[in-house]
Amino acid sequence: MHKNAFAIHGDIVWSKNPKELQTVEGGYLIVVDGISKGVYPQIPAEYQGITVVDRTGMLVIPGMSDIHVHAPQYGFRGLGMDLELLDWLNTHTFPEESKYANPEYAWRAYQIFSDDLLHSATTRAVVFGTMHVDATMTLMGKLETTGLKTMVGKVNMDRNSPDYLCEKDAATALEDTKKWLDEVEDSHFENTKPILTPRFTPTCSDELMEGLGKLRAERDLPLQSHLSENLSEIDWVKGLCPWSTCYGQTYEHFGQLAGDQPVIMAHCNWCPDNEVEILKENNVFVAHCPQSNAQLSSGIAPIRHYMDLGMNVGIGTDVAGGATLSMFRAMADAVAVSKLRWRLVDQNLAALSTEEAFYLATVGGGKVFGKVGSFDEGYEVDALVLDDSQIKTPLELTLAERLERYVYLAEEGGRIVEKYVAGRRVL
Amino acid sequence: MHKNAFAIHGDIVWSKNPKELQTVEGGYLIVVDGISKGVYPQIPAEYQGITVVDRTGMLVIPGMSDIHVHAPQYGFRGLGMDLELLDWLNTHTFPEESKYANPEYAWRAYQIFSDDLLHSATTRAVVFGTMHVDATMTLMGKLETTGLKTMVGKVNMDRNSPDYLCEKDAATALEDTKKWLDEVEDSHFENTKPILTPRFTPTCSDELMEGLGKLRAERDLPLQSHLSENLSEIDWVKGLCPWSTCYGQTYEHFGQLAGDQPVIMAHCNWCPDNEVEILKENNVFVAHCPQSNAQLSSGIAPIRHYMDLGMNVGIGTDVAGGATLSMFRAMADAVAVSKLRWRLVDQNLAALSTEEAFYLATVGGGKVFGKVGSFDEGYEVDALVLDDSQIKTPLELTLAERLERYVYLAEEGGRIVEKYVAGRRVL
Repeated sequence: MHKNAFAIHGDIVWSKNPKELQTVEGGYLIVVDGISKGVYPQIPAEYQGITVVDRTGMLVIPGMSDIHVHAPQYGFRGLGMDLELLDWLNTHTFPEESKYANPEYAWRAYQIFSDDLLHSATTRAVVFGTMHVDATMTLMGKLETTGLKTMVGKVNMDRNSPDYLCEKDAATALEDTKKWLDEVEDSHFENTKPILTPRFTPTCSDELMEGLGKLRAERDLPLQSHLSENLSEIDWVKGLCPWSTCYGQTYEHFGQLAGDQPVIMAHCNWCPDNEVEILKENNVFVAHCPQSNAQLSSGIAPIRHYMDLGMNVGIGTDVAGGATLSMFRAMADAVAVSKLRWRLVDQNLAALSTEEAFYLATVGGGKVFGKVGSFDEGYEVDALVLDDSQIKTPLELTLAERLERYVYLAEEGGRIVEKYVAGRRVL
Repeated sequence: MHKNAFAIHGDIVWSKNPKELQTVEGGYLIVVDGISKGVYPQIPAEYQGITVVDRTGMLVIPGMSDIHVHAPQYGFRGLGMDLELLDWLNTHTFPEESKYANPEYAWRAYQIFSDDLLHSATTRAVVFGTMHVDATMTLMGKLETTGLKTMVGKVNMDRNSPDYLCEKDAATALEDTKKWLDEVEDSHFENTKPILTPRFTPTCSDELMEGLGKLRAERDLPLQSHLSENLSEIDWVKGLCPWSTCYGQTYEHFGQLAGDQPVIMAHCNWCPDNEVEILKENNVFVAHCPQSNAQLSSGIAPIRHYMDLGMNVGIGTDVAGGATLSMFRAMADAVAVSKLRWRLVDQNLAALSTEEAFYLATVGGGKVFGKVGSFDEGYEVDALVLDDSQIKTPLELTLAERLERYVYLAEEGGRIVEKYVAGRRVL
């Protein structure tokens, strides 16, 4: 008899590949020690007798990986989206992030973020905190208790930032970062891991960038940042790093892209060919954030191009550039903006299909965390049980159609009934 | 003492003009015989003693006018959005609309549409039915009982349509239309009015177009159709009407734009200057449908240009080109696509602000129905009472910020508590 084994019974959908869904109506997803043993129309002989979670008639799909989200910006989601990136940072974002110097404010605000993330479709997330060590520890502690698997970064920024939100100098920034990493180690979190987080090249001195590159190598740490989001930002980087061949090379130059631990670069809307080459060579994950890129008037990333090149791509909500934590909404937005890009910018790059957006939100981003985002045998089981019965229609729908519709109508009658992370129920 | 008078007490927000909101925290909206007598910080002396609906702490805003929505497409919302307009019509839309020849199917499907529209933010709507008289009467009957104010059209289409969804010839089409109009008259609907509805030039013969133009003049009827949505559609019209100076002129030529009753043209994504001139001269309402125009890869309408010219503009959800009836989502989409258009197409046309989108969804589209969409004195009171307390934040927000945030987060914790149409509570 298998210990720690159970099955989820329902209408199961996951990605076979970027273009195709795999569907088993009334199927059984077998989970042993948090790992998928596959999906079957009947429980296989060797698993007879295991507990069955009966969710007949409900959709069962992989959990989503939101690979770019700013926890301290959650408080002003849906507000102040009348500016482009650099003005938006100075007007709305930096003043808000500075409040996280106050532990009590951080505690209240991160409680809301953690609660809402737990109730969202996200099972894994790659998260920006602020530059504050204490607040970042608070955030990590709260996320730990949700049972969601996350990578969380204390932000580094030691130049071109307002006095009230700027690390004193590179040495202090690196010292604080090490202090934070040591605290994390002492905390023995099971679900929450640290990730190095230079905010972006404009706010990080060469000395800080170099120090973070070394730290990545020494401690074998993942790293996240922003890249080629906005045209003014790109011009600024050219001015700050006249020696660089492209914005992306400013990270590569300081050793931040090399190594086996994942690197996530948010946006990549305007990468020149040599930058794309650097991303591809270093297996960097592109975090596509369609809603944010529209709301901050940044542009539309050529995701089709990156997929054609076989690059690593996932999806991020980028709260508060994006207004919501909904990864369903992020998928729908990814499809929508890819169509506008095809129509208005470049008809050589076909629009994304809903199936492709689903693949990016599950398997694509899940790869940051290992074998995550699929129900194929050997994957960690992150799963959502969804009730779509209140999205009314007179039509008989196939399972694939129910999934497609859920992507567009999750917030219009859909309901997350249960949520599993690595085989453990968290909701 | 005033009969039929009451006040709604809450945090009241409406448009002062396209660029500015008017806000009264803890205010009183005075309603007499369905008409606004204004909003006051205290109940004025002459209204002392009237019933007060106490909604302290809740948002009170005008209802929305969805000025372009296809009721028979609601069943497949969120599905089949992998095609452009003309293929989408033939593959998904026409087969579905043909089912409305079956009265039982129409009854079931329109019940769902009417229920969901009642529970949405929409208080007024301009609605496409199908070509079927009986089904259209069923739709009108159901909408009548919701208490929402609507204009509903039996669709006309007598060419370039599949055999299973095509009127026999222009004479039959016009006869059926008159029969339908007579039935509507006999029904004495209070809330539901007929609107002439040539589907679009490609599916309407010259004889039919001419007949509908005459009918509009004879019976003083409003009219709705589609215009310059998609580039292939526009080419097609050029081929079908080689005599025309532009697509829009094919409606004008047959007398469909002249007269006092409103004309609504959906989309207007690609209007040349002479077409814009025709729309402006005839006071035509442009129904901006941002989600549909993205999902069908159609483009982005230059709404800023139309607003600068002082034209009539409102917003439509265009279900099922758009997936949802949410006018909040439609507002957010209008802002988002205008930013992408600014970034990617034409930096001479500034993006829309949230305030402007709110104006278009309330006052702009409300004008189709008369003095609707504002709380200024003399307007019919369409109102929504909204609970935004479950959209959590550690911030203290102004009333204007609460409204702005609600536009982006309506489906993420917002709740419509009550709904009034012309002063009557419908929800």
